[in-house]
Amino acid sequence: MPPLITLLTDFGTADGYVAEMKGVIYSAAPQATIADLSHEVPPQDVELARLAVARYWHRFPPGTVHIVVVDPGVGTSRAALAVESDGRLLLGPDNGVLSPALLFPNAVSVALYLGKSVAPTFHGRDVFAPAAAALATGAAMDTLGEPFTMPLVRRTKEPVRMSDGGIAGEIIAIDRFGNAITNILGGHGGRVDVGGRIVPVGRMYSEVPPGGTLALAGSSGLLEIAVREGSAAHELELTRGAPVIYHRG
Amino acid sequence: MPPLITLLTDFGTADGYVAEMKGVIYSAAPQATIADLSHEVPPQDVELARLAVARYWHRFPPGTVHIVVVDPGVGTSRAALAVESDGRLLLGPDNGVLSPALLFPNAVSVALYLGKSVAPTFHGRDVFAPAAAALATGAAMDTLGEPFTMPLVRRTKEPVRMSDGGIAGEIIAIDRFGNAITNILGGHGGRVDVGGRIVPVGRMYSEVPPGGTLALAGSSGLLEIAVREGSAAHELELTRGAPVIYHRG
Amino acid sequence: MPPLITLLTDFGTADGYVAEMKGVIYSAAPQATIADLSHEVPPQDVELARLAVARYWHRFPPGTVHIVVVDPGVGTSRAALAVESDGRLLLGPDNGVLSPALLFPNAVSVALYLGKSVAPTFHGRDVFAPAAAALATGAAMDTLGEPFTMPLVRRTKEPVRMSDGGIAGEIIAIDRFGNAITNILGGHGGRVDVGGRIVPVGRMYSEVPPGGTLALAGSSGLLEIAVREGSAAHELELTRGAPVIYHRG
Repeated sequence: MPPLITLLTDFGTADGYVAEMKGVIYSAAPQATIADLSHEVPPQDVELARLAVARYWHRFPPGTVHIVVVDPGVGTSRAALAVESDGRLLLGPDNGVLSPALLFPNAVSVALYLGKSVAPTFHGRDVFAPAAAALATGAAMDTLGEPFTMPLVRRTKEPVRMSDGGIAGEIIAIDRFGNAITNILGGHGGRVDVGGRIVPVGRMYSEVPPGGTLALAGSSGLLEIAVREGSAAHELELTRGAPVIYHRG
Repeated sequence: MPPLITLLTDFGTADGYVAEMKGVIYSAAPQATIADLSHEVPPQDVELARLAVARYWHRFPPGTVHIVVVDPGVGTSRAALAVESDGRLLLGPDNGVLSPALLFPNAVSVALYLGKSVAPTFHGRDVFAPAAAALATGAAMDTLGEPFTMPLVRRTKEPVRMSDGGIAGEIIAIDRFGNAITNILGGHGGRVDVGGRIVPVGRMYSEVPPGGTLALAGSSGLLEIAVREGSAAHELELTRGAPVIYHRG
Repeated sequence: MPPLITLLTDFGTADGYVAEMKGVIYSAAPQATIADLSHEVPPQDVELARLAVARYWHRFPPGTVHIVVVDPGVGTSRAALAVESDGRLLLGPDNGVLSPALLFPNAVSVALYLGKSVAPTFHGRDVFAPAAAALATGAAMDTLGEPFTMPLVRRTKEPVRMSDGGIAGEIIAIDRFGNAITNILGGHGGRVDVGGRIVPVGRMYSEVPPGGTLALAGSSGLLEIAVREGSAAHELELTRGAPVIYHRG
């Protein structure tokens, strides 16, 4: 199979930055398949990128090389990482965006060497794309950098168990449909307190009529608040960071 | 040739849902080529997706597998379809989005079996992507579901001939350039009544000066109202659903 | 290696126009790899497309076929070009969008023949996509058109040296991060006068604190004005066309 390289960035596409990265990759690894995952992450939104990475990194086959460039710290001393985790390879800045793979057992990391001609504003083109092409054409990760011994930036949000048995978390993302996604793993049943409302936890949208509100475990297992055929974020005025409490009973 | 799978969704890309679908496909059919057609269909806009499908489904070579996921009814009893039509295979919900292929002679359909681990909110990942990978790797369509005998949802809009010979239709889409696209097949000559104006029907933009208004048969044969180097929708305040009358003479 | 065809357009994706182009290409050249570079160029923004082309056209390997369709003049007498420049092949309208390749030494061009069934509103599908597929499958460029002898439209913006040694240019683009990109090639040191401010020219974002303003040579060598982890365009109210003066000393 041809090597597979995926791209997630906050670059948009119109400015030509992603195009430059693709030119670098195809020049160095012409046999590679490049899969665009997104270039529409909101600018410098490391947290949303991390959530996307959590969804997809492990669904790709072993050997996949994932490039993740949401990098407000480019040009500072933050490390540029290569990570091997359960057979997948990931490249991105040490700002937590790679946390989902770093927190998987037995992940190993190197800090990539930076060449002299690296533009201090564009590691996507000059560091991560060449490293991806090298990995895709068979280079060993330890030839691309030094073992990384500093504490890695790992991001994750953990909900908190309350004395009454409830679980206190928050809304961590609003998706394109206006679903408000929480950091609480949820099942079926119980209720969610959010934005001054009590919302029952169901299993599928069809349990409420169009326009009705419900909570349910979304496709990644996290509880989300939804309005059927509508936008929960808009109609319930929910935003990232808003507190959520889940009672199973 | 490697099997070709196309994707049209209303998911956007930033949330990672499309990325998950691609991971599922590449894991099950690593030799497949995936072509992104759009992920920017407005959320739950089945009608606009149907128009896009009408444009492209038949231009791809026989054997292409088209995934179309604009699916406000996910998690209800609507069927998840696989369709074979003139050698192309299409996968999507039974809400009319596949009408252009369903209305082609000799189309056949099955209602896909749903496995037990299917997330009721994300058939794109758990139903349509695996079915596409199966079809792309040689599975027969009738092994993936039951022949679909319920009346399929077919959507199409037909203009009406008036007693004076005019044809009454409507604006069914506004494209990115502000062209207002009607449901009336048109040729060259005659006039269009729209939004209180009478617009002559020409053949190409250069027949009017920049900023000038004309109607013409667009690239799919449907009459559209355009402003050269401008936006007809904006300048003439045209919206979807607005009535249009075409007189050939 | 499979032939590589890249796409840059201002079509967006939701209307299905890009999908039609891909169907045409895959039908005529099923072995081709198609790389999306952008479909989000602002409608009819030839200048921004030209800047993107300048960034990427030469980073792809020789033999790459670049399709560039930002084409407000479609349906007028403007030529449809094929260009060979330093081993890369480019297809697009004669409106300056291909300037970066045309200005490279020894570029040669043909004006593509237009078949009878060409839609006068959609040369992307009916002229450029078939020509790209032909080139990707081995057709010689001179079989697709006539040598182009009219003066080609070449666009470029040149800054002007002032009597005091300063260089007067302008802002030619605002990128997705709000960086204001000028037409002045810059190094490290000196200052930029822009929008009534004097901004020192540094080398990397980390030289100022988050929220701080600096100028620096961006990843293509052009001076740009940036706010670290912010938007210079927004915070300094910079727009395209605004004058910029650079003093090295």
